[in-house]
Amino acid sequence: MSSSSNDRPNFAAGNGLLPAIAQDATTGQVLMLAWMNAAAYDETLRTGQAVYYSRSRQKLWRKGEESGHVQRVEAVYLDCDSDTILLRVHQTGPACHEGYPSCFFRQVTPEGVKVVATRQVDPREVYGAKS
Amino acid sequence: MSSSSNDRPNFAAGNGLLPAIAQDATTGQVLMLAWMNAAAYDETLRTGQAVYYSRSRQKLWRKGEESGHVQRVEAVYLDCDSDTILLRVHQTGPACHEGYPSCFFRQVTPEGVKVVATRQVDPREVYGAKS
Repeated sequence: MSSSSNDRPNFAAGNGLLPAIAQDATTGQVLMLAWMNAAAYDETLRTGQAVYYSRSRQKLWRKGEESGHVQRVEAVYLDCDSDTILLRVHQTGPACHEGYPSCFFRQVTPEGVKVVATRQVDPREVYGAKS
Repeated sequence: MSSSSNDRPNFAAGNGLLPAIAQDATTGQVLMLAWMNAAAYDETLRTGQAVYYSRSRQKLWRKGEESGHVQRVEAVYLDCDSDTILLRVHQTGPACHEGYPSCFFRQVTPEGVKVVATRQVDPREVYGAKS
């Protein structure tokens, strides 16, 4: 298939930011959802390490730059509308800044939201007392 | 865990709309990403069928209402920031309106974007000639 404008996520559709899902390449577990702008996407493709755009900090977020919990990207997919990105990754350490393997560690049940995963690390050990 | 405001997705964080990931409950395949407002979320929980909010049509989108390709929801998860929803679903037919099992049927490769899945149905047979 030749390269074309369809080969590129449609960042304009998200006013410059598109959701990117990280999925564990080995287990299939959905690890997290973050956001990418064009620069984050390009750096991800170029380096093979997941780079997102932090909406709160308003800058590129090289996943693991502080925690060491990097994501090596095995494969990148676009959805049918080219407005969502899916990464299959090899995750070092927990994906979640709360210390859980996945950010989706809470299940909605009729009795309320319940933690259904086991903490892998203590976030205070990773990020220091400020967490 | 007692019910609290943390038991609810933080729809305000997304100006009323949050991304919702649908994952196949059996295979773990990521099927699609769509959007939910509070009404879509509540109806999903109440009925056990995935309901999204269509940004293009600006109304509730009961997944499968036209195609029959409904999603029965097995479990619902919230992420650490309560601003992304993950559904584990049992999908009837293809999840994607293009007729593929998943919307993420295109992989980004050094040679461009390649279709890496097999079409399950012809969209024209599902939606009629207008597709």
